[in-house]
Amino acid sequence: MRTVWPVYGRRAVAVIDQRMLPHRFETIELASAGRAADAIASMVVRGAPLIGVTAAFGLAMQADADAGDQALATAAGQLKSARPTAVNLAWAVDRALDHLMAIPAARRADAAWSFAIALADDDVATNEAIGRHGEGLLHAAAHQKSGGWLNVLTHCNAGWLATVDWGTALAPVYKAHAAGLKVHVWVDETRPRNQGAGLTTWELREAGVPHTVIADNAGGHLMQHGEVDLVIVGCDRVTAQGDVCNKIGTYLKALAANDNDVPFYVAMPWSTLDRRLVDGVREVPIETRSAREVTHLTGRDSNGKMVEVQLVPDGTQAANPAFDVTPARLVTALITERGIVPATADALAAMGPH
Amino acid sequence: MRTVWPVYGRRAVAVIDQRMLPHRFETIELASAGRAADAIASMVVRGAPLIGVTAAFGLAMQADADAGDQALATAAGQLKSARPTAVNLAWAVDRALDHLMAIPAARRADAAWSFAIALADDDVATNEAIGRHGEGLLHAAAHQKSGGWLNVLTHCNAGWLATVDWGTALAPVYKAHAAGLKVHVWVDETRPRNQGAGLTTWELREAGVPHTVIADNAGGHLMQHGEVDLVIVGCDRVTAQGDVCNKIGTYLKALAANDNDVPFYVAMPWSTLDRRLVDGVREVPIETRSAREVTHLTGRDSNGKMVEVQLVPDGTQAANPAFDVTPARLVTALITERGIVPATADALAAMGPH
Repeated sequence: MRTVWPVYGRRAVAVIDQRMLPHRFETIELASAGRAADAIASMVVRGAPLIGVTAAFGLAMQADADAGDQALATAAGQLKSARPTAVNLAWAVDRALDHLMAIPAARRADAAWSFAIALADDDVATNEAIGRHGEGLLHAAAHQKSGGWLNVLTHCNAGWLATVDWGTALAPVYKAHAAGLKVHVWVDETRPRNQGAGLTTWELREAGVPHTVIADNAGGHLMQHGEVDLVIVGCDRVTAQGDVCNKIGTYLKALAANDNDVPFYVAMPWSTLDRRLVDGVREVPIETRSAREVTHLTGRDSNGKMVEVQLVPDGTQAANPAFDVTPARLVTALITERGIVPATADALAAMGPH
Repeated sequence: MRTVWPVYGRRAVAVIDQRMLPHRFETIELASAGRAADAIASMVVRGAPLIGVTAAFGLAMQADADAGDQALATAAGQLKSARPTAVNLAWAVDRALDHLMAIPAARRADAAWSFAIALADDDVATNEAIGRHGEGLLHAAAHQKSGGWLNVLTHCNAGWLATVDWGTALAPVYKAHAAGLKVHVWVDETRPRNQGAGLTTWELREAGVPHTVIADNAGGHLMQHGEVDLVIVGCDRVTAQGDVCNKIGTYLKALAANDNDVPFYVAMPWSTLDRRLVDGVREVPIETRSAREVTHLTGRDSNGKMVEVQLVPDGTQAANPAFDVTPARLVTALITERGIVPATADALAAMGPH
């Protein structure tokens, strides 16, 4: 199963509604670029690679409706602005648009679908390769530990739900688990949207990988006590000097890993590299989401019903920056489809273009 | 209003049921040492200073029922074991017990009540003094900033609800606010029990202090962007070398403060110093609480009803360490009732005994 797939007869795509997980497994059909943009903005689909691919499908649906230059450019703009931080979104839309603009309008619809399908397949191959390279790191760490369980900490969800398949940060875990390595995952719940508690736990459970959910506050304590062998997270944008923008709270875990000599790896599809930016803290645009994501929370009550509850006094103000930036100095290495790469300007430049 | 008060005619105490805040304001009467111990363990009352005082009242209620050596010693043991991490609990109970054991059994009940009442009054005076010393730091920081709001970040609740009155970390904020300083507080929600989202917000709102609740993940990002002028937290135990044990997640904020040159202050009543311990990470006993505090959460639904919701898939395992230790090297200074003290072995030793 993938996270997004074309419904060929309908010239639409279906996606898993990730807002309902882990409590309900529901799929939604998206039949226009506008619906795709809405699904990205409301986090029906999320994860940097997946929103890029979903947007490419969105552009294909636009090409079905009206493949004229203006219509495509407008839809591209709408899709790109659905979420500002993950560069994969703009990367995928810009690539698709460049490709289509070079083709006569009459042939664009089919070309757009082919492009999106190829992009989805590429994503799967990319993540499989990230998994292969990362798996080596896990085996090496287990070897060094000589016995017992290997404890990996991850933040947010960078599993197959965040991509088309495999995932970025979790791909090495799935590969190592399949190879028989005794790997256990500490899952940060990842407030405010709880992608760890709801999505990563769900994925790991389905895959049979042992895991334990923890409050985001707990990781530093676990590292101080030798309970974390390595950290792997995904990313939404990596700058030319290797600064990593990822889900809010990643930076705190990187600081704790650094303070306790725990390796801190970032799984990065090459499409997440944004060479136009250098200083991540200053330059990466950080999405601010609704205060309600902090002040309210949806879960399942004892009758199995989804209920939203309020956590704060009436009228309490909240701030909700959705991402933060981890400076390159705190990153042990980037796990890419091309191999393990140091988070430095020189190493990234040496790896060549996209 | 205080957080615990004797109901004289009944030889009992009343407390605010802090599990219900911010959604309901309810008080509970505790009429035995056992009920006091239960209230401490279940976090009806919480906060290092408050659980110490509540336990002293518990011992007084035991002295009413049976003031014999054995009965008092048993009750003392039960009260001390209600929660393991905050040293104030053992400190208050041991002091009360020593005091009573030196008195004939017939006079112990009245003496125990007097002792507990004096302890409560001392706590208020201590926190008022912490507020006074800390207020100076806030004015100095505001002066240095020369204009605009002073932004203080705090973790968990170390306000008046955590003490008998005033609070530790929030006392300086209340004093500065009363003195007309433009102070705004970033309130970490403090998962898993949300003492920030539920209690600190409630306190600050009642006091009219501007504040914004944030996910625990957000503090590092805010510090990177100059949005935090200083951090003040409370503590549950401080070692002879100045290592600070406080609510889980404090260490992560201290790391971020250190990485961004943001002063990190710990408000510490002298009773929270445990000179028997040196290396906090190795030596402070860290309470592990129920996994359910991580996997489930109680809030208020749209009808105003308190509802518990599940956040994870069925059967998901969770770990719940309730405290962590911030090494002294990350602490700018301790704010005590005796003044501002560096978090070093020499400075703490120089301040003399309890």
